[in-house]
Amino acid sequence: MTGRVILVGAGPGDPELLTLRAVRELEQADLVLYDALVSPEVLELAKRAQRFSVGKRAFRPSMRQEAIHALMIRAARRGKRVVRLKGGDPFVFGRGGEEVLALRAAGIPHEVVPGVSSAVSAPALAGIPVTHRGLATAFTVVSGHAEAAWKPVLAGIAPRGHTVVVLMGLAARCEIGGFLLGRGFAASTPTALLLAAGTPRAHTWIGPLAALARFEVPAGLEDAPGTIVVGDVVGLSSAQAQRSAEEGDGYALTR
Amino acid sequence: MTGRVILVGAGPGDPELLTLRAVRELEQADLVLYDALVSPEVLELAKRAQRFSVGKRAFRPSMRQEAIHALMIRAARRGKRVVRLKGGDPFVFGRGGEEVLALRAAGIPHEVVPGVSSAVSAPALAGIPVTHRGLATAFTVVSGHAEAAWKPVLAGIAPRGHTVVVLMGLAARCEIGGFLLGRGFAASTPTALLLAAGTPRAHTWIGPLAALARFEVPAGLEDAPGTIVVGDVVGLSSAQAQRSAEEGDGYALTR
Repeated sequence: MTGRVILVGAGPGDPELLTLRAVRELEQADLVLYDALVSPEVLELAKRAQRFSVGKRAFRPSMRQEAIHALMIRAARRGKRVVRLKGGDPFVFGRGGEEVLALRAAGIPHEVVPGVSSAVSAPALAGIPVTHRGLATAFTVVSGHAEAAWKPVLAGIAPRGHTVVVLMGLAARCEIGGFLLGRGFAASTPTALLLAAGTPRAHTWIGPLAALARFEVPAGLEDAPGTIVVGDVVGLSSAQAQRSAEEGDGYALTR
Repeated sequence: MTGRVILVGAGPGDPELLTLRAVRELEQADLVLYDALVSPEVLELAKRAQRFSVGKRAFRPSMRQEAIHALMIRAARRGKRVVRLKGGDPFVFGRGGEEVLALRAAGIPHEVVPGVSSAVSAPALAGIPVTHRGLATAFTVVSGHAEAAWKPVLAGIAPRGHTVVVLMGLAARCEIGGFLLGRGFAASTPTALLLAAGTPRAHTWIGPLAALARFEVPAGLEDAPGTIVVGDVVGLSSAQAQRSAEEGDGYALTR
């Protein structure tokens, strides 16, 4: 009597941006293993489940990936219905692929429930479309976690007509801004830094690319997830944003 | 007494992948203006609303973008609560940005409700993570609609370590496959063509990049939305897919 594991995307934080399927899986779960970026309101939907944080956060200890696999597999073998709950979408920088491979190797029935990814929704919630006729015909999503990973990716992107989205980009914002400037991006390229998008702590900064390195993280948001968006589409977020990106040093707006 | 316009992402088609917020907005709407890719089951949630198709489809006449703007604005000025319902996410190739600019210029209160984008969920529903440790540290999303748009984008992508996602890629699959091969992508690069993902008609083809041009569209799916995914992550979809991508001419699986 084997149980099953459902990898569920929790979206950007706002429980209203959960999918119907995610809600149903949470309500039926026996065990929920959740990441650090999942909000308490979302967890409360798993009324009958045991809930364990297995999340990784900068500067804090976290469970090893192999230990997460072992926990899921053991619970499923005991007949439990396990929800593996991840911020955003489970297959966008969530190591969901590794978890699926481990479940497949162990012969555990499993499914993936896509979620609203921060790569698109963090900009959208700040009024920024990642594509826009005449401004951007494509967007690239990369993690800011490791320089060896983002450098070759950003090196291939033309300075116009393409939107760059860097997830987990807060810590590397100076290096990323400097690298893009060195690759021919204009100093005035409209740029956004979106902290804790989709949560009550959300904080949006918009300014020219050259000012990104001078952004100071507001108190209490040092460990918030940060999404960097670079490209002309950022100028669409509002008239004020556009003016600011052309002339000033950026402005912040708390939503 | 002005109404308002809510741009709502309907996700890939399965009503279970709607967000809670999308369901609520549909239930409260007076008027729903929907695109061709929105499924009937989703529309049925808008019980009290008038519903109009304003969708664009290949080979069929469609409403001009300016006419859609005028319709939204006129209804909102009459006090209506308008839902502008788009497949996937409203800000990923949905012309949502243009609609927001028109609403802003007209002084109409408006909001954007992000949805589950096909760019990530179509691969996920076929078991393909767009990022995976050791295989892909980034993904790029581009539309296959206009060659002048996708060529410069795909030209900047290295043949390894990066996932390419082409939305609306069905018609241009031969040109896109040929272009990537010419840019140094290996003939054996695992490739997927996902038709009507997230709907009951869903059809998945997986094979080597060199075989993409030989894919024949099954009867009844000629007008289905088609997502092309190119990159080593496609090999993760199942052991069978991996073997096929290495050796064969691709295989099809109807889900």
